[in-house]
Amino acid sequence: MVRVALDAMGGDYAPQEIVAGGVLAARELGVEVILVGKRKEIARELEEHDDVSRLPLTVVHADEVIEMTDHPATAAKTKKKSSMHVGMGLVKEGAADSFVTMGNSGGALATALFVLGRIKGVKRPALATIYPTIDGYTFLLDIGANADCKPEYLYQFAIMGNIYVRDVLGVRNPRVGIISNGEERGKGNKLVLETVPLLENAPDLNFVGNVEGKDVARGVADVVVMDGFTGNVLLKTSEGIAWMLGEMIKQEVKKSPVAILGAFLIKGAMKRVLARTDYKEYGGAPLLGVDGNVIVGHGRSNRIAVRNAIRVAKSMAEQKVIESIRNHSGIIGENAK
Amino acid sequence: MVRVALDAMGGDYAPQEIVAGGVLAARELGVEVILVGKRKEIARELEEHDDVSRLPLTVVHADEVIEMTDHPATAAKTKKKSSMHVGMGLVKEGAADSFVTMGNSGGALATALFVLGRIKGVKRPALATIYPTIDGYTFLLDIGANADCKPEYLYQFAIMGNIYVRDVLGVRNPRVGIISNGEERGKGNKLVLETVPLLENAPDLNFVGNVEGKDVARGVADVVVMDGFTGNVLLKTSEGIAWMLGEMIKQEVKKSPVAILGAFLIKGAMKRVLARTDYKEYGGAPLLGVDGNVIVGHGRSNRIAVRNAIRVAKSMAEQKVIESIRNHSGIIGENAK
Repeated sequence: MVRVALDAMGGDYAPQEIVAGGVLAARELGVEVILVGKRKEIARELEEHDDVSRLPLTVVHADEVIEMTDHPATAAKTKKKSSMHVGMGLVKEGAADSFVTMGNSGGALATALFVLGRIKGVKRPALATIYPTIDGYTFLLDIGANADCKPEYLYQFAIMGNIYVRDVLGVRNPRVGIISNGEERGKGNKLVLETVPLLENAPDLNFVGNVEGKDVARGVADVVVMDGFTGNVLLKTSEGIAWMLGEMIKQEVKKSPVAILGAFLIKGAMKRVLARTDYKEYGGAPLLGVDGNVIVGHGRSNRIAVRNAIRVAKSMAEQKVIESIRNHSGIIGENAK
Repeated sequence: MVRVALDAMGGDYAPQEIVAGGVLAARELGVEVILVGKRKEIARELEEHDDVSRLPLTVVHADEVIEMTDHPATAAKTKKKSSMHVGMGLVKEGAADSFVTMGNSGGALATALFVLGRIKGVKRPALATIYPTIDGYTFLLDIGANADCKPEYLYQFAIMGNIYVRDVLGVRNPRVGIISNGEERGKGNKLVLETVPLLENAPDLNFVGNVEGKDVARGVADVVVMDGFTGNVLLKTSEGIAWMLGEMIKQEVKKSPVAILGAFLIKGAMKRVLARTDYKEYGGAPLLGVDGNVIVGHGRSNRIAVRNAIRVAKSMAEQKVIESIRNHSGIIGENAK
């Protein structure tokens, strides 16, 4: 049975929703869940659930918490009793197969590098995310771990993203693209222009070329790589536009009683739109390149999102993603000097 | 009277809507409009309007057209009889004060560099755009002219954007920001980290620091600078998200008769949202840094958008934007080595 260590203290609704999600997973997914965090708080939450004693559920105490406001690198070094530190330690020593957190993603990355280190051959780990598209979703990386990148980093992001999307998300022969300022070959900044030939020559990679910002949402690729600065801007801009349009609709609807009635009538349709763009379905995204299975979910995750994150953490262990990445590190080293 | 040369051949609805916009401007704005393009086609369009002979409206023939599909640099060099070439030539020789086009923006930039050149002291010209926000708009540059930038380019974009927004758009003491992957000082890629101190030390610049992608739409700054690669991704991503959300709403509404009625009732509110995010109000944005007033509008511009572009082209001439930029080039040279 796959054993998933769960950071009970990370996320906006911790520990309540996290523990509830862990209980759901232990009940439904055929995994052992190890709740990591302040023992008393976890125990109090567990009392809210029935029949917990018969579930594959254990608790490991951790005294500290890496907060959302903590500086990632500092917290990783100084809070050695944090739930992230302890949980990843379980993975490191083989007592757990995967680790899941809804906490500070920068803190998770810094702690992972500190506790687990990088997979041999991987130059830089990446933060990834699942991004909604008109007909499903796409996998973006890096979305913030590496503000400045070299071509070989982006090359490795593509290799790692390809493995994850193929083996964990189950997409056959994923289409892999690179963000650029124009879809034609030859468009790009220096980084993109130098990365494209590496991707074109990558063995077993279904490279579909440049992807423009407007085409990500059209679902033209299953994996899209970019430097972490661009990834952050892309993601945050999407968030900003979605917020602004929603806010403008609310403001304009308020101005007319007829529109207020109309808004009431399309509420169901709007809810379905929100569901289609909801991160909760996907649970979380991996830190790719660190030497251990780590899934980081959204801070606003509820119990369903937590359960789904545990589902992908389980799959990541079963599919031996780390081994696949390690087996490709030779190729990485060969092509990208 | 300010004389504005108008590219009658550029844009999706050329020459019909362009000529109509030129007629509107000549009628309403107290400007002389010089229609540049194929004489016969322009004459045919002018026949559709009344009393044209009494308006301050002239025609200058140009044999060629830079198409949307043309490669910018190649077209600028080889199509020397294009309407862009001829129109900017009028500005160069002092026969017009400003030039307006709704055509290929890359072609306009390349032609401007060829015909007008850069303002003395300016290292790189920038493409700008007006971007909708929750409470108005903000001015973004560079959105695509320079995929790779140096700190001193971004510094100059800030200076030029500040002058334009203050003098042409009439914003008092514009708040100037820089796109970054975090709002805290110290967040950024190498380019941003090196640019921030230049902006902090810029005289007479109301620098408000880093701006995240999600905060552009919140209207936290009046001018936001970035490299052209990031600008292109930001703009295209916004377009993609707006398209996707609109498309999803349509799809979900279709599934229920009640929602179809609801959608009918909020049509007015939705139209007002679209109006708030509509480029047509703003007419166009300048090529900043070229030695002549050039406004590039949206390819889908109708006659109203064309008229409004001529309005800003007039204001750009009246406010002597080029002179202000030239007067600041010494400061630019001093601070950004």
